[in-house]
Amino acid sequence: MASNSFGKIFKITTFGESHGRGIGVVIDGCPAGLEVTLAEINDALALRAPGANPYTSPRKEPDNAEIISGIFEGKTTGAPICIIIFNKDQDSSKYEPIKNLLRPGHANYTYIEKYGIFDYRGGGRSSARETAARVAASVVANKVLEKNGIKLLSYIKSIYHQSINISPDELIAKCYINRKFSSTNFANLQKEIYSSPIFTPDKTTEPKMLQLITNIKEQGDSLGAVLELIIMNIPVGLGDPVYDKLEAKLASAMLSIPATKGFEIGRGFKSTEMLGSEHNDEFVESLDDGPVATSTNNAGGTLGGISNGMPIVARIAFKPTSSIMKKQNTVNLSGEKADFNLPEGSRHDPCVAIRAVPVVSAMASLVMADLVLMNKTVKL
Amino acid sequence: MASNSFGKIFKITTFGESHGRGIGVVIDGCPAGLEVTLAEINDALALRAPGANPYTSPRKEPDNAEIISGIFEGKTTGAPICIIIFNKDQDSSKYEPIKNLLRPGHANYTYIEKYGIFDYRGGGRSSARETAARVAASVVANKVLEKNGIKLLSYIKSIYHQSINISPDELIAKCYINRKFSSTNFANLQKEIYSSPIFTPDKTTEPKMLQLITNIKEQGDSLGAVLELIIMNIPVGLGDPVYDKLEAKLASAMLSIPATKGFEIGRGFKSTEMLGSEHNDEFVESLDDGPVATSTNNAGGTLGGISNGMPIVARIAFKPTSSIMKKQNTVNLSGEKADFNLPEGSRHDPCVAIRAVPVVSAMASLVMADLVLMNKTVKL
Amino acid sequence: MASNSFGKIFKITTFGESHGRGIGVVIDGCPAGLEVTLAEINDALALRAPGANPYTSPRKEPDNAEIISGIFEGKTTGAPICIIIFNKDQDSSKYEPIKNLLRPGHANYTYIEKYGIFDYRGGGRSSARETAARVAASVVANKVLEKNGIKLLSYIKSIYHQSINISPDELIAKCYINRKFSSTNFANLQKEIYSSPIFTPDKTTEPKMLQLITNIKEQGDSLGAVLELIIMNIPVGLGDPVYDKLEAKLASAMLSIPATKGFEIGRGFKSTEMLGSEHNDEFVESLDDGPVATSTNNAGGTLGGISNGMPIVARIAFKPTSSIMKKQNTVNLSGEKADFNLPEGSRHDPCVAIRAVPVVSAMASLVMADLVLMNKTVKL
Amino acid sequence: MASNSFGKIFKITTFGESHGRGIGVVIDGCPAGLEVTLAEINDALALRAPGANPYTSPRKEPDNAEIISGIFEGKTTGAPICIIIFNKDQDSSKYEPIKNLLRPGHANYTYIEKYGIFDYRGGGRSSARETAARVAASVVANKVLEKNGIKLLSYIKSIYHQSINISPDELIAKCYINRKFSSTNFANLQKEIYSSPIFTPDKTTEPKMLQLITNIKEQGDSLGAVLELIIMNIPVGLGDPVYDKLEAKLASAMLSIPATKGFEIGRGFKSTEMLGSEHNDEFVESLDDGPVATSTNNAGGTLGGISNGMPIVARIAFKPTSSIMKKQNTVNLSGEKADFNLPEGSRHDPCVAIRAVPVVSAMASLVMADLVLMNKTVKL
Repeated sequence: MASNSFGKIFKITTFGESHGRGIGVVIDGCPAGLEVTLAEINDALALRAPGANPYTSPRKEPDNAEIISGIFEGKTTGAPICIIIFNKDQDSSKYEPIKNLLRPGHANYTYIEKYGIFDYRGGGRSSARETAARVAASVVANKVLEKNGIKLLSYIKSIYHQSINISPDELIAKCYINRKFSSTNFANLQKEIYSSPIFTPDKTTEPKMLQLITNIKEQGDSLGAVLELIIMNIPVGLGDPVYDKLEAKLASAMLSIPATKGFEIGRGFKSTEMLGSEHNDEFVESLDDGPVATSTNNAGGTLGGISNGMPIVARIAFKPTSSIMKKQNTVNLSGEKADFNLPEGSRHDPCVAIRAVPVVSAMASLVMADLVLMNKTVKL
Repeated sequence: MASNSFGKIFKITTFGESHGRGIGVVIDGCPAGLEVTLAEINDALALRAPGANPYTSPRKEPDNAEIISGIFEGKTTGAPICIIIFNKDQDSSKYEPIKNLLRPGHANYTYIEKYGIFDYRGGGRSSARETAARVAASVVANKVLEKNGIKLLSYIKSIYHQSINISPDELIAKCYINRKFSSTNFANLQKEIYSSPIFTPDKTTEPKMLQLITNIKEQGDSLGAVLELIIMNIPVGLGDPVYDKLEAKLASAMLSIPATKGFEIGRGFKSTEMLGSEHNDEFVESLDDGPVATSTNNAGGTLGGISNGMPIVARIAFKPTSSIMKKQNTVNLSGEKADFNLPEGSRHDPCVAIRAVPVVSAMASLVMADLVLMNKTVKL
Repeated sequence: MASNSFGKIFKITTFGESHGRGIGVVIDGCPAGLEVTLAEINDALALRAPGANPYTSPRKEPDNAEIISGIFEGKTTGAPICIIIFNKDQDSSKYEPIKNLLRPGHANYTYIEKYGIFDYRGGGRSSARETAARVAASVVANKVLEKNGIKLLSYIKSIYHQSINISPDELIAKCYINRKFSSTNFANLQKEIYSSPIFTPDKTTEPKMLQLITNIKEQGDSLGAVLELIIMNIPVGLGDPVYDKLEAKLASAMLSIPATKGFEIGRGFKSTEMLGSEHNDEFVESLDDGPVATSTNNAGGTLGGISNGMPIVARIAFKPTSSIMKKQNTVNLSGEKADFNLPEGSRHDPCVAIRAVPVVSAMASLVMADLVLMNKTVKL
Repeated sequence: MASNSFGKIFKITTFGESHGRGIGVVIDGCPAGLEVTLAEINDALALRAPGANPYTSPRKEPDNAEIISGIFEGKTTGAPICIIIFNKDQDSSKYEPIKNLLRPGHANYTYIEKYGIFDYRGGGRSSARETAARVAASVVANKVLEKNGIKLLSYIKSIYHQSINISPDELIAKCYINRKFSSTNFANLQKEIYSSPIFTPDKTTEPKMLQLITNIKEQGDSLGAVLELIIMNIPVGLGDPVYDKLEAKLASAMLSIPATKGFEIGRGFKSTEMLGSEHNDEFVESLDDGPVATSTNNAGGTLGGISNGMPIVARIAFKPTSSIMKKQNTVNLSGEKADFNLPEGSRHDPCVAIRAVPVVSAMASLVMADLVLMNKTVKL
C-alpha cells in the first residue's frame, strides 16, 4: 500500500535508504513562481547533519542535495520538484556480524516479519537519514509560509531530567513588540537557538545539558528529550474540522518522525489536571485591527481543530536513542538467545532528539503549508 | 477541501450536525460477507449516549441508527454502508441569546472566521454528537478485527488529580492464561469496565472519582481526564514505515476526537526521562510457536511504526469540558466585551472524557481495521 | 477498497441500492456560502426520472431528495452535504424467478464472483438509479461553476444509425453574440434541448428518432446512442498536466456512467485520419481583451490536458440497453444452460442513453468544479 | 494541487522535464519480494526510445535508467522504488527563436497562462519523454501481473486511413490452444509485433503503412493513428463498481498519455449502432473447470466495470504529431501575429503513436496491477 506520502495539496513522497544510492523527495502540488535555491536546501540540511558538534553523532556526511526537477531559472514551475541527496560510498562489511540478530529498540525484526526482506546494512525506511528528505522539502514549504508571514521554531525543552527555565510564553513575547509580531525579533531568537550546539534557548541550563550528554556518551548509553514547537503569526482559520484538525495533522506528522513517543498541544497532558474554568481561554477585545485574541493560551492555538490566531504551542517526546554501545540481550532470526553488540566504530548518537529539532520544524512547515493551501477553497 | 474522511482502504466519511436532520457515516471499502446487525450498532451507540448515568450529560437522546445501504440479508455486500442517526426535534430557541457571542473554549469563533457562516444552535462539525457516527462505523470495523482476533479496550486512567492504581500490564495479564490470549478473560474484563458508570477498571478509586465529579458538577465546573487504550493479540507487521506508522495513524485518530490535547504510546513522555539501556525492550525466546516477544514493553507495541506483536498501550489527554455553568468573560462578534452564560437548561457534562471512552475504542478499531487491510498487499 | 468517491477537492461519495432504503451522496469539500435549494435538486432529478415520457422507461418514481446535512439557512456551511433519495416500497417478488440466472449484458455475474453476495432484486451499485445521486450532487457543483461563468450542455447526437444534422460549432455559435458569450442565448438553447422528449437539439431529425424508438420498443429490443457534451466560457488553465489532464478526468467520469463504452474529445477518433497540418489549431489574435483564441477547435478545448479557453467538445458512446424483452440464452449460477426472460412487468427502457443526458452533464459539472477549485493553489 | 501520481495501492509519482536533469518515477505500494533487474527496465525503455528506426523520431537518446532505491539484492523490499533516467547534455540554444511564440497544437500557451512560467526548451510535463518514466514503472507492475498470469499487448491498428486486416479475436485466438491460454503462443505473438518497426501485427499492411509514413515525413507533415490494446488471461472480479470501473481507470490512464483524443472498449462507438439483442453477449457453459464464458465479446471484457474473464479489448485514438516541419500561423506572447517554424534540426516524429505503443501497454499494466492489489481486500 502506498504510504510514503504526506500532505494533501502540498504533498511530499520520500524514498531511499541510508545504504543505497541516496535518499530523496518528490514535492507535488507546490505553487508555481516561488524562488528556491540549492544553497537554501543545503543550509537546512546542514542543521540536521551529524557531526556538526561533539554532542551528536560523529559521522561526517556532507549532505549535498541535487535538484532533479521542478525548478527553472530559480523558480518553482508548478511541476513536481525532485530533490536527491546521494549517499557517499560506505563500507558496510562491519554490519555482517549482526546481520542475523534482532536489534533491541530497532525495526529490523518488524521489517523482516512484514516484508520478508531487509537491508541489514541500515535502518531501511526507519533510518534517521530519511528525515533529511523531509528537511529538504520543508525549505520549499517555507516559501509558501513566507507568503503568509507564518513563522515557526522548535528547540530542546528538556533532556532526561534536565529542563530549560524559559516558558513558551516568554519566547513568544520576545517576538512581539507592542502586540505586533516582529520578524526581526523572531529571526534573532531563531539564530540564537541555532547557535546552541543542542538547539536550546536557555543559556543557563545549556552547560548542564552538555555535561549530561558527555557523561552518558562516555557510558555508551543514551538520553531521551522533549522538543517544543511554536508557530507564530498564524491567520485564523487554518485546519479543517474532524479528521484534518490542525492538531491531528501535527500529531500525525510528529509521530511519523523516528523515535517519537508522544505529542501534546497547549497544556496537553497537564490540561487533564485543570478545571474547565481554569483551562478555558477567555476572549478579549483585540487591539488595533487585529483579530480577536484570548487572554491566556491554554488551548495552544486551536479551537475545534482550527487555528484561532494565537501561537501554536506543542511538545513532542523522543525516546532515548536505541543504538547504544552496551551489550544487550536479544535473539537471532531463528529465535535463539544471543548477545547484541553494535559493531566497533558504529556511530553513536547519545541523544537523537537534538538532530530532530530541524526535523520537527520541517514537519510542522509541511503541515502548515498544506493547511494554507487547503484553505484557499473554503470560500469563493 | 474534502476532509471528513478517515482511512485508506477501510474509509469512513462522516456528515451531519447536532441540530440538523441527523448525523451519519458512509463506510467505503468494507470487505463483503461480514455479518452486521442493527442491534449491535445500537448497543455500541448506547455506550456513549448521554444520560446513561448521572456522571455524564443528562440529555436523554435514544440514538437509534438506521442502515441505509450496503447490508443485504444481514451481511455486508462490498457496497458502501450508510448509517444514519436521525436527530429528534429540538427546541433551539434557547440558543438565541448567545448567538452573537464567542464561546470560550469553543469553535464558533474559528468556524465563523473560516466559513463566514455558523449554525449557532449546535457545535457544527465539532459537536461531540459527530462521534456517534464513528462509533457506528467501528461496529463494522470490529468485524474485520474479529477475523484476525485483534481485541481492544479503553478506560479512564485518571480524572483531574485522581488516578487508578492498576497498570496496563496488570490488565493485560488478566487476559492471558499461560502466555496464551484468552478471549473469555478479555470479554470479562471489558464487561467489568463497561459496567462502571465512568468506564474505569479500578473499583477502589471509582468512588473517589464519582465523588469528584459530583462535587465539580455542583460547582458548574468541569474536569479533564486521561484515557488509556490497550490493543491485544495483534499480529506482527501492522503499520507502514514513515507516514503511516501505526502510532502516527493512532495519534491522528485520537487528536481528531473533540477535546483531546495529547497522545502518547508506550512510556510516552516518561520515556524522555529514561536511559536507552532502560528503555530498549530486549528480545526473548518465544514460548510455544508464538512470535518472538520482548521482556518489557516500553515501546508500547511498535518498532519502526510497525506492530511487534506486543500489546499496544497508549494514552490520550482530554481537556476539561469547555461548556461550564459559570459566567465567563468574552467578546461578541463585533469584538466588544460581553458576559458569557450558557443558557438555562443547557446540558452540562462535567467530564466529557467519560463518554469519549467508546469513541477512543472506535477510532482505534478504525485504524486497526485499515492497517489489517493495508497489510494484505505487502507480499504476494 | 474504498472506491465510491469521485473528485479531489470537491469530492462526492455515493451510496445506496435501487431496492434498499434509498440512494444518496455525501459532498465533501464544497466551499461555504453557496446558495442551494431543495427545489433545484428535485428539478434536476426530474430531468433524469423515468416515466417522463413514453420514450423512456415507464416506471413512475417521483425522486424526492432530502437534505440531511451541510446546508443552513439556504447556504452551504463548508460541512459535508448529505442528500438522500429514499426508495418507495417495491414488490421485489417478481425477480425471484431470475434469481439464479446470469443476466446477459448485466453485472450480476461479476458481482457474485467478486463479492460472493448479490442483491438479486436490483442492479446493485451498477443500477442506473445510482446516477440520481450524482445528479443531485451536480446541482451543488454547478454553484461553483456559476461563480466562474462556466456553462455546460449535453444532448443526443445520434441514436443507432440516425444522427442529428447540427454540428457543435453551430450550437456554440448560437451562444455567442459578437464573440461574447451570452448567458441568455445559452439558457434558451438549453431550454430548447430540455423540451425535447429525447434531449436533442435538432427538430428535423427528432421525429425520425422518436419513430425509431417506438418501433424498437415494440420489438422488445433496445438502441445505443452517442451523446455530445459542450462546455463553454471556460477560463484558460483548468486541468493539470499528466494524470489529472482535463480530458483524463472527463474520460474517467464518463466511463464511470453505466452503459458507456467510449469517450472522445475534439475530433476524437476522426483525428486519427487527419494530417498534423490539418489538425493543429492555429492561434489567432484575440479580439477585445479576451484570451488568445484558435481559428479552429479540433483539439476540443484543451492543450496538454489544460483548458485553452476554447469550448470543450466531447462525445460519449452508450451501448444499447442490456435489459430487453426478448428471450436470451444464458446459464445459471451452477453453469447450466438456461433461458433468460425478464419478468413480466419489468420496466423496459428502449434507449437508456436518453436518460443519461443529464447524468453526462452532471459528471462534467463535478469534474469542472473540482478543476476550478484545484486551480486555486496553482500560484500564490 | 498534487496531480503527478497514478494508482491507489500500486501508486506511481512521476517527475522531471525533457531539458532538465532527467525524468523519473517513484513507485510506492509495490509488494515486497518481486525480482526486478535494471536490464529489464532498460529493455522496456529501448522499445519506446526514439531513433530505433527511420519511421520514428531520429534523435538517438540511449535511455539508461538508474535504480535509486527500493531494490535490494535484486528484489523489491516494499520500500518506494525510485528510478531515474538522466538526460544527456543538450544544446538548447536552438529553441531561443521560438521562445516567445505560441506553438500550434502544443501546451506552452496553456502552461504559461496557468503557471506564469514555462521552460521554453522542452514540453514541460507534457513532453513525450515523461512517458519513459511510466514505461520504467510498468516493468515493476508487470511483476505483479506475472504472479496472476495476466498478459497484455498493444499494437498499431490503423494509421491515417490505412487499417490492419486482423481482428482482435483473431489475435486472441492465436494465444489459445483448445480454449486454454498459452503463454508460449502469447510470447510469440508479442515478439512478432515488437519486431515490426511500427508495432503492427499485420505483415500485409505493414509495407503500405511504412510507405505512408515515409511520404508524409518527406512532406514535413504528420499522421494520427489508432492503437489497440488486448489484455488476456484475466481473473473474474477486477475493477470496482461506480468510479473505479476497470474501463474508467483504463480511460483515465489512456487519456493521460500525450496526444490521445479518445478511448473505447469492446465495440466502443460502434456499439451505438447495434441493437441490444445483437450487442448483449450470451453466457455459455464453461468447458473444463474454467469460468463461465460468453459466446461473443462485444462488451470487451467487463460487466458493470468488473472483469468477466473475457479478454479486454480497447482502442485509443492518437492525433497526428503536433510538431510538423511546415510553417504555421500563430501569435506571440503579446498576442501579435507571427509565423511559426520549428527550429532547423528539430526532431520530427511523423507518427508519435508508434512510440506510444509501449506506453499504452505500460499504462494498462499499471492499471491492472493496481486492480489486482485492490482486489485483495474484497473478501476476508
